[in-house]
Amino acid sequence: MTVTLRPHVLFNSEWDSPLAWKSALALQFDDLGFSTPDDTHSPDAVNIALIWKVPREGLHRFRNLKAILSLGAGVNQLDPAQLPDGVPLARLVDQTLTDTMVEYAKAAVFRCHRNFDVFERHGRLEHWQYVAPRLARDTTVGVLGLGELGSAIATVLRDEGFEVHGWSRSLKPLAGITSHSGSNGLAELARRCAILVNVLPLTPETEGILSRSLFAQCQGTRLINMGRGGHLVEADLLDALASGHVASATLDVTAVEPLPPGHPFWNHPRVLLTPHVAGLSSPATAAQVVATNIRRALAGQPLLHQVSAARGY
Amino acid sequence: MTVTLRPHVLFNSEWDSPLAWKSALALQFDDLGFSTPDDTHSPDAVNIALIWKVPREGLHRFRNLKAILSLGAGVNQLDPAQLPDGVPLARLVDQTLTDTMVEYAKAAVFRCHRNFDVFERHGRLEHWQYVAPRLARDTTVGVLGLGELGSAIATVLRDEGFEVHGWSRSLKPLAGITSHSGSNGLAELARRCAILVNVLPLTPETEGILSRSLFAQCQGTRLINMGRGGHLVEADLLDALASGHVASATLDVTAVEPLPPGHPFWNHPRVLLTPHVAGLSSPATAAQVVATNIRRALAGQPLLHQVSAARGY
Repeated sequence: MTVTLRPHVLFNSEWDSPLAWKSALALQFDDLGFSTPDDTHSPDAVNIALIWKVPREGLHRFRNLKAILSLGAGVNQLDPAQLPDGVPLARLVDQTLTDTMVEYAKAAVFRCHRNFDVFERHGRLEHWQYVAPRLARDTTVGVLGLGELGSAIATVLRDEGFEVHGWSRSLKPLAGITSHSGSNGLAELARRCAILVNVLPLTPETEGILSRSLFAQCQGTRLINMGRGGHLVEADLLDALASGHVASATLDVTAVEPLPPGHPFWNHPRVLLTPHVAGLSSPATAAQVVATNIRRALAGQPLLHQVSAARGY
Repeated sequence: MTVTLRPHVLFNSEWDSPLAWKSALALQFDDLGFSTPDDTHSPDAVNIALIWKVPREGLHRFRNLKAILSLGAGVNQLDPAQLPDGVPLARLVDQTLTDTMVEYAKAAVFRCHRNFDVFERHGRLEHWQYVAPRLARDTTVGVLGLGELGSAIATVLRDEGFEVHGWSRSLKPLAGITSHSGSNGLAELARRCAILVNVLPLTPETEGILSRSLFAQCQGTRLINMGRGGHLVEADLLDALASGHVASATLDVTAVEPLPPGHPFWNHPRVLLTPHVAGLSSPATAAQVVATNIRRALAGQPLLHQVSAARGY
């Protein structure tokens, strides 16, 4: 592939290290421009935005953008109204991100499977109550979302021996996993699964999907939210925890992060909060797919993992 | 193998179901005697004791015992002074027991690996603090005890991607696992491993092995005790948790069970207590090895998994 334009990346993230990304990308290109919003002296030279969120001053002064590459597996943190029209947008698919998400799912699912959530609560109450263990094959896990991450999580949990059900917008057959779709399929997942893991993308269709109507189908379900805070109606979860429809919740994401002081999730005996740590992209592994997308963008080709404006992911 | 004696089992357990065991064993023998201490009308007919603990009234009235078969993976719950001389004793090796122990180890190790112990503590304090995730390959786990259970746990954790070290009385080479033995080996395990899992048998040599001198080698180690309460010096653990040598403890066993009210482990922010639930024997799977040992005992052959009086396991 002949690259005629010199790549020049605008980098913006509150989480990711510009230095680590610059070094990782420098290994992929002989000549690379790299700047952050604070040190961009020639906005016209910038042709790639590699960003977590849109910089405070927007992207519109970068008139020669050929691609916007998200630093996240999702793009919902990017306000569509702030994105320049006609510039293709791609999600980040990174093996380290997938692997860290898969290991988080294992940790959270095994914790519920072996009733550690119950025993933690009992420990606070000085309550010793034997609960017989069951094997993974006797525990049903539902995975909401069967994209890159959801499929990886569902198949690994299947390999761990769990009975796995999956739910996605359109039916997605995966070996050894019972697939569901649609609102009836979602209700069935809630009725049948002892543990529900959410890794859906956040779109207008999935916003607030973890709500009263879903919880009404649950009977002591364990909920694990590895998606986005916007998937969950927090007040509905508090009600479902009180009524017992949901037995415990593991929340890696919340509507507002960090979770504000005094929020009822803090110190809730049925909630485990983790501070948005489920997945981590590594520049070392992610730089390759980013470099491929930079080359594609500069050559006018479609991006890998390009976001569909219609679907929103 | 010709069985000349009619098998007659004396069953005694506060945990296991006599009915489930009677049914499972009845599938293995055409003719089987089965009684509990309360309904033994002809003690002379009893030739096998299948027991968790020695019955209150002892075993000495059963003069024709050919074998004592433990219902536990260990035999330390059986007071040697209460056992008749010269009757062979066997541990129970059961696939369901192994599988439940392995899944508990996964749950406890992944929970520590992904810092859920830290985040639970932070949740109580309304403290949101990002801690970057690491992958299993960057976490070192040490397994104390490489018998049936320890070997199974070590190899499964290796397959999950962890860097696994093992420690046993005599050096036991296992593929992909670094083996250690002796007191220097134990100190090295403590220095090198982020997570320590104890599944040793309880013997005079291993009693109190989880103590001040071991903890002094630890630097923020997570301790998981799936062995016996007698392995742990509880006061030393409390000191090590206070000093930070041990960052958290997951205890499935305690010196006194149930843990007495007011014990400092209750509601300790760095202790997860589980009420002796790590392993469960299933009569359905265990009956086969028990039946084999009944046949061997009645034919005067050595037992499978027979306990060595010298080693104590």
